Amino acid sequence: MTTLHGMLHRLPEADAAATAAVRERAAHILRPSGALAWLDELAEWVAGWQRTDRPRVEHPVGLIFAGDHGVAEAEAVSAYPTTVTEAMFEAYRQGRSTISAFARHAGARVDAVDVGIGRPTGDIRYEAALPVERFEEIVEIAVAAVDRLDADLLVLGEMGIGNTTPAAAVAAALAGGETAAWVGRGTGIDDTGLARKQAAVQQSVRRIAGITDPIEVLREVGGAELAAIAAATMAARQRSLPVVLDGYVVTSSVLPLVMVEPTALDHCIVGHCSAEAGHRRLLERLGKRPLLDLDMRLGEGTGAMAAVPLVAMACAGITEVPTFAEWFG
Amino acid sequence: MTTLHGMLHRLPEADAAATAAVRERAAHILRPSGALAWLDELAEWVAGWQRTDRPRVEHPVGLIFAGDHGVAEAEAVSAYPTTVTEAMFEAYRQGRSTISAFARHAGARVDAVDVGIGRPTGDIRYEAALPVERFEEIVEIAVAAVDRLDADLLVLGEMGIGNTTPAAAVAAALAGGETAAWVGRGTGIDDTGLARKQAAVQQSVRRIAGITDPIEVLREVGGAELAAIAAATMAARQRSLPVVLDGYVVTSSVLPLVMVEPTALDHCIVGHCSAEAGHRRLLERLGKRPLLDLDMRLGEGTGAMAAVPLVAMACAGITEVPTFAEWFG
Repeated sequence: MTTLHGMLHRLPEADAAATAAVRERAAHILRPSGALAWLDELAEWVAGWQRTDRPRVEHPVGLIFAGDHGVAEAEAVSAYPTTVTEAMFEAYRQGRSTISAFARHAGARVDAVDVGIGRPTGDIRYEAALPVERFEEIVEIAVAAVDRLDADLLVLGEMGIGNTTPAAAVAAALAGGETAAWVGRGTGIDDTGLARKQAAVQQSVRRIAGITDPIEVLREVGGAELAAIAAATMAARQRSLPVVLDGYVVTSSVLPLVMVEPTALDHCIVGHCSAEAGHRRLLERLGKRPLLDLDMRLGEGTGAMAAVPLVAMACAGITEVPTFAEWFG
Repeated sequence: MTTLHGMLHRLPEADAAATAAVRERAAHILRPSGALAWLDELAEWVAGWQRTDRPRVEHPVGLIFAGDHGVAEAEAVSAYPTTVTEAMFEAYRQGRSTISAFARHAGARVDAVDVGIGRPTGDIRYEAALPVERFEEIVEIAVAAVDRLDADLLVLGEMGIGNTTPAAAVAAALAGGETAAWVGRGTGIDDTGLARKQAAVQQSVRRIAGITDPIEVLREVGGAELAAIAAATMAARQRSLPVVLDGYVVTSSVLPLVMVEPTALDHCIVGHCSAEAGHRRLLERLGKRPLLDLDMRLGEGTGAMAAVPLVAMACAGITEVPTFAEWFG
């Protein structure tokens, strides 16, 4: 059985030779040395995980996990009813959603995986989001979803009405500080709703006060798509596939991984900083600089997908451009 | 004869009805209202200039102007010899440069226009960069270059060894403040070279102390590709074609326009903030927020081209995604 802990104890490292080869080539490309700055570093990073001195982004894939949340069914923590999760999922399937439109302009495919639509998690205020067997099942589904991809760059996204509530609970439980500071307006809830949401997160975090295993925290106060994202991130690592992380929910989902093993997210970059309260602090906590900072707060992987062309260009700047010697030689 | 002043006195405005239609549609698209934030505003902006309620970026074009500089031939203000301008121009022509590689991943074409390679401007420390007739000729060439394009979004870029020196001179002369603060390391000059460059800029700015017409400042201490960029920007405005501006040299080139007419750059956005000293201050002066902030300092239009997919996605988010009513109706 593939488990999160199992994958976390078997973390392949990047190919240092490929990284070094790209760093060397970058210094001699037909442009002033260092002029692409961070983009050259991105190309080195892709090379290390793709294990090649000619990094490319030709087959990026967006993988979106969707699920429903007991706390959202029981308490109005979102501006939308939970039935919207299924409607949005159908829009992904038919290529009509915002992430589908973004993907077309990034040359990417989108694959959406149902990990719990219409099958809500436990209400995290009172009980575990996911029983152990269900959590394990979701991990297996997510790993299989990554395993069947033909991709050279993976974007991870999520959809689930109410899922910034479990995201905030995971962040608050693991990163600490004042709980309310991790709770934002999500899809755009009003002040009364925000107070309800803060109370729900506080109650959930208090409920699991004794739990120290970060993966258990994810199972207790996370959700189906959050667990799937953590598992998909680790599955990508096993395959040495570089990952672009999206906004607050995705970042909260992978936080437990890095708290078990500090190098667990070395194969991940962050596509954007979301406008959702807490995301910037979470990124500082992870030591990750977002490529984009555009005030977006949609989810669906859109902020990560928006950054994909930058990663593709960074690689093309190494792989498709000659060195001075190749050009003049 | 088409002149900069002539175009500046005939500035079409955006189509307010198209902008309003997109703003209205954005509020009802199949996603939480406001979730794309700035990207929705970008789509509104494109719609206004494309004069349509269905904005699209399907045919973006990068237009690069290249020229040589007398001050760079006479004084070592760059890390590279001026012969590199021609070599880089050939790389654009053959689609082998960094901007060509970026353009492929943005779905864009690149067109490079020689406005003075091997025909250096006057040494701006002692004389005008461009005599009046030459300046007028370059304006005509740039306008013609824009007029023959089939484009729905225009990226403006430049190449010219030593051209951050005239760019700094234009910025210092028009934006004021301490001259040295406008002078950066360009392609990567050392401390001694930087001191030479600062002295050259100071001398140039002092020479034109009595000149008040911003366009005359551009002619006196600018350069061929700088004049061409200013003219291309105004030609795009005449055709209601939205423009993405690149880094320090491009921004300095268009600064004179906005000092003649404050609305002159309403059809322009800024693709990125360059690492070149002075660019951020120049953008603050223009009141323009860059889409990207990646420490790049290459020129060639690369920072603007890197932002093109974001503009394309912003439009697709309006044009290719249904409203709630269209989806559920």
